[in-house]
Amino acid sequence: MTIQTATPAVDAAVTHRDMANAVRFLAVDAVERAKSGHPGMPMGMADVATVLFSRFLKFDPADPDWPDRDRFVLSAGHGSMLLYALLHLTGYDGITIDELKRFRQWGSKTPGHPEYGHTPGVETTTGPLGQGIATAVGMALAERLMNARWGDGLVDHFTYVLAGDGCLMEGISHEAASLAGHLRLARLIVLFDDNQISIDGATALSCGDDPLARFAASGWSVRRVDGHDPEAVATAIAAERQTSRPSLIACRTVIGYGAPDRQGTEKAHGAPLGAEQVAAARRTLEWPHAPFEIPPAVLTSWRRSGARGQGAHGAWRARHDDLDPVLRRRFDAALAGELPADLDRALGEVASGFAAGRSAIASRQASQRVIDAIAPVFPNLLGGSADLTHSNLTKATVQRDVEPGSFGGSYVRYGIREHGMAAAMNGVALHGGFVPYGGTFLVFSDYSRPAIRLAALMGVRVIHVMTHDSIGLGEDGPTHQPVEHLASLRTIPNLLVFRPADAVETAEAWACALRSRRRPSVLCLSRQALPALPERDGDGNKVACGAYLAVTPAGRRDVTLMASGSEVSVALDAARLLAEEGVAAAVVSAPCLELFAEQPETYRRQVLGAGPRVGVEAAVAGNWWRWLGDAGEFVGMTGFGASAPAEVLYREFAITANAVAAAARRAIRRVAGTF
Amino acid sequence: MTIQTATPAVDAAVTHRDMANAVRFLAVDAVERAKSGHPGMPMGMADVATVLFSRFLKFDPADPDWPDRDRFVLSAGHGSMLLYALLHLTGYDGITIDELKRFRQWGSKTPGHPEYGHTPGVETTTGPLGQGIATAVGMALAERLMNARWGDGLVDHFTYVLAGDGCLMEGISHEAASLAGHLRLARLIVLFDDNQISIDGATALSCGDDPLARFAASGWSVRRVDGHDPEAVATAIAAERQTSRPSLIACRTVIGYGAPDRQGTEKAHGAPLGAEQVAAARRTLEWPHAPFEIPPAVLTSWRRSGARGQGAHGAWRARHDDLDPVLRRRFDAALAGELPADLDRALGEVASGFAAGRSAIASRQASQRVIDAIAPVFPNLLGGSADLTHSNLTKATVQRDVEPGSFGGSYVRYGIREHGMAAAMNGVALHGGFVPYGGTFLVFSDYSRPAIRLAALMGVRVIHVMTHDSIGLGEDGPTHQPVEHLASLRTIPNLLVFRPADAVETAEAWACALRSRRRPSVLCLSRQALPALPERDGDGNKVACGAYLAVTPAGRRDVTLMASGSEVSVALDAARLLAEEGVAAAVVSAPCLELFAEQPETYRRQVLGAGPRVGVEAAVAGNWWRWLGDAGEFVGMTGFGASAPAEVLYREFAITANAVAAAARRAIRRVAGTF
Repeated sequence: MTIQTATPAVDAAVTHRDMANAVRFLAVDAVERAKSGHPGMPMGMADVATVLFSRFLKFDPADPDWPDRDRFVLSAGHGSMLLYALLHLTGYDGITIDELKRFRQWGSKTPGHPEYGHTPGVETTTGPLGQGIATAVGMALAERLMNARWGDGLVDHFTYVLAGDGCLMEGISHEAASLAGHLRLARLIVLFDDNQISIDGATALSCGDDPLARFAASGWSVRRVDGHDPEAVATAIAAERQTSRPSLIACRTVIGYGAPDRQGTEKAHGAPLGAEQVAAARRTLEWPHAPFEIPPAVLTSWRRSGARGQGAHGAWRARHDDLDPVLRRRFDAALAGELPADLDRALGEVASGFAAGRSAIASRQASQRVIDAIAPVFPNLLGGSADLTHSNLTKATVQRDVEPGSFGGSYVRYGIREHGMAAAMNGVALHGGFVPYGGTFLVFSDYSRPAIRLAALMGVRVIHVMTHDSIGLGEDGPTHQPVEHLASLRTIPNLLVFRPADAVETAEAWACALRSRRRPSVLCLSRQALPALPERDGDGNKVACGAYLAVTPAGRRDVTLMASGSEVSVALDAARLLAEEGVAAAVVSAPCLELFAEQPETYRRQVLGAGPRVGVEAAVAGNWWRWLGDAGEFVGMTGFGASAPAEVLYREFAITANAVAAAARRAIRRVAGTF
Repeated sequence: MTIQTATPAVDAAVTHRDMANAVRFLAVDAVERAKSGHPGMPMGMADVATVLFSRFLKFDPADPDWPDRDRFVLSAGHGSMLLYALLHLTGYDGITIDELKRFRQWGSKTPGHPEYGHTPGVETTTGPLGQGIATAVGMALAERLMNARWGDGLVDHFTYVLAGDGCLMEGISHEAASLAGHLRLARLIVLFDDNQISIDGATALSCGDDPLARFAASGWSVRRVDGHDPEAVATAIAAERQTSRPSLIACRTVIGYGAPDRQGTEKAHGAPLGAEQVAAARRTLEWPHAPFEIPPAVLTSWRRSGARGQGAHGAWRARHDDLDPVLRRRFDAALAGELPADLDRALGEVASGFAAGRSAIASRQASQRVIDAIAPVFPNLLGGSADLTHSNLTKATVQRDVEPGSFGGSYVRYGIREHGMAAAMNGVALHGGFVPYGGTFLVFSDYSRPAIRLAALMGVRVIHVMTHDSIGLGEDGPTHQPVEHLASLRTIPNLLVFRPADAVETAEAWACALRSRRRPSVLCLSRQALPALPERDGDGNKVACGAYLAVTPAGRRDVTLMASGSEVSVALDAARLLAEEGVAAAVVSAPCLELFAEQPETYRRQVLGAGPRVGVEAAVAGNWWRWLGDAGEFVGMTGFGASAPAEVLYREFAITANAVAAAARRAIRRVAGTF
């Protein structure tokens, strides 16, 4: 099924060195022209990348989204010009010489670090070190999960990663390596740019690890090669494609290979070489061509390498087209991330059940019921938890575990690896075929934050189920009580942060998250039981509006109490207290401030009301201030929590109906000028 | 120098098992009474901990702060009752049986997870997994740094860590292990609770690592023992104290040891055993005593163990008192974290130089000059960077590297380990003797966030030097451009986030950070040059006020422009544009919103003015809304950045003087009701 050409598919007159030099000097010239960028890695890894792209990688530049292509992840994203050069040379549409000349310029296809969704052939956004390798674990996992469902004829590809010292020093690389080794993701092959140089100088300044021993300890197949010996590299890749374990090939290279006064030193890493060194490198590497000039024979050889995959692609397409139409439709829908037709019904039924039952349950429990309702009709839902399955309540009854070397299940035991989980979910979403969700405690969103950020930047649908969402978790104390995490997650652009107030809202939040094709979501769920909100006027998913009136006073409105999650019931109690004094309070449930901000201004004004407002959330205020106005008050946390039963904490931190009512009275007096 | 008693210091009639059972059942009984907590780990690790505390650990409960005590870090913080039981049994003041009975209750000394500064004998706050082991690396580093300066007579202790599977699965454990192995921190000994159970079940569900091979690959000395065989544990600890490498002792234990139907399963981990299993455990372990009852002979034996260190403590005190008074004073001042008398002068001189020179330099460059000015007079300043020394500009000319096995230097090459660096800095600060600072890019504060949070929760003085603080870094693009990080760091309670606008403010921010004894700081510094602000009225550290009037219009004030860092000059330009139209704009520089919030309301009102306000920051708004009011506007970012030269980005994202002036006009019209 896969391409097994182990011999170079190049013009006889064109050597490996010519092809690698084409990569090197496009990178060097583009960095020089941009006066900014990283020439060292492309120069060092050009040989390895040339072997990979010209002999092994299964791809077709004419269709960068061909589902059964091999994935190539440039984990060392600062070496972006290596990838852009390869994309140009192999013939990706739009990656022209002119775009290479516009490296790092506004609006170009060639930004400083590779950006998914921006440049064809870029499988994931990289740059923050370690993210690429951890994302690739998710891609390799998704490949095996799809393979287990659809067989070798449709899904049978490798995931290759180019990673540097930085990627391997980052902690996330341990989580990724450990998870991949455990699951035996044999089709993951990491090409480690073992150049022994990092930004400060020799890696020996800060690191004495034996990377081969380390990856072997996590169950990987490992070997070392001379990264400038193309046949040795080819032999290594060919061999590692046959192992039953993920593979690390440490490629000993020289950073800045060919620049006589810079190579092998940190000076080659992150700055243009300068005209003199560029000229010297041209002499050293016998590349007499002008900047951005690729000799036609070399380009032809590269384009032939780019065309290597056409046959395999055509054969795959034929197998795909020969599929039973129902199966083909299902396969395509899975890859396109379509939601099943039955999903709305399943979600509607569970929400109706909640609305009818009106029982007080924790939103994490409501989420469990949602998952149990949708998993049977949505086999492409891929669940998981970072070792908190019974706390996050993330596993549906119908879900079986994904096991080492056995990929028929749909629930991943991610282990105590929140960061690795978040990155792997990104990889699963990028690969296609599944909608991933994964659980941990909200406070530990800090651990996975760099990967959550990348999900938002890339605009991929991953769903974080984060339970124990406030001091309401009680006795575990301040290390486990999120107080700043709602506010902090809300600062990330293009991320939806949901905090449902009852079971119905939980079902609606799930619906919103599943339908957000281009945005990741975080579902912030309670450990403690939440009473059902008052019965609603009208139909429709209220959470999709971000915030809405849960209680509207009959006549005038003196004050608006706005809250999310467990504090909506506190606001409702406060409204009742105020009503006893003749103060008419509206109560707004605000499960998603991001979606609220996107509503038309007329709607927002109607919800906010003209009078003073009080925000209530068992957390720091953060951007709540945007909605509270000059007269507003916020009832929440100003510092860290404490270890005690939840009800004691709410009382001691004064997040109570009485405190909210008092704040409302102050706000009303302030507006009236009697304060 | 250290205590070398390898034989049990116990009553002849009292066995090791009695002592270990005392620990076990105090834990079991406290969890049972709290109806909440984690009995499994204390039951499993009671034997190992008993060996450590009764035979090896150098400590004196009468003086929990004795500088030369061994440090004990419970990285598996959920097993807090193990530690509280040991603190009670060995005789720490205030850790009474009554406090154990108030486990996890409001105001008790025995919160759910150990909290530094709250309970004597707790060396660091733990609970978020992996933090303890990484913090301990900093403690072990500080010990060697102090030893290199003061010799074995004053500083000669071990750092012991009790870590579980969860700690070892977290990525930060890799960074910690790799850094400790590189530096050869031989006096760090990790006791790994190798019980093969995590919350979801067998660790084999999610992990196949060989932990011994993994740590050996990072240069550690490793061995495995039966964690229920006290002599084997003692032999292992004694041997590992002699190695020239950090040590990992994998202690094979049974979680929930002694509870017949729970032991060896995840059911023992995180919930009370229940009366029946507690009774069964009492029978199994032959511990017939009532809840919280410790037989006098057992308590006596434990108290004798607690008194083991008195001799060593007394001898140390004598050596300390015999020191030359000048040296002793210096030693005590270092441990107390006192700032040198010359520091104010050095800081004042560099600030005066900046004020006189008025040159436009990047705040990272100004920071470099500050560091160069203070390092010579402040030898207890411990610098470092996560492999970005030449970008963060964090190394003073006088600083030499800390090297493997050689600890005379004062600059740490933390490697590409932002999270490990932040946790190690916490450990250095907790140990005492140094004020640590460390550099990385601001966007990578996400990687170190869990450790920054712990620093804030504990209230320790660590200084994060985070450069490249906005889209102003330019071509590296959105993966490297912080847009949400200022807002997100500002959500963390008890953390000071500084963003100085010029060189003078940079010096002042450094002064504030150094003087913040009980708060960590983040210095957010520019890559690009910043012009000097207008000459000031009056003396004093303006940054300490959080925000202040940089420009006050002569007559009326029509609008107030508030900005931080690189955007203050944008606001100043806007004020000039507005002045040309006859609009009187005040300009507020707001280098620290947290300190501004702490100013008296009269001061705040004076700065904010009565008119409309416009906030300007090349970042998302976050809690800026608190200061802008109903009529306010915010000029900043609403999404991610892009790859292009900085000036192009400012123009394209419309963070310009024109945009600020337009926002000011809108705000003025809004207040006037003409909008």
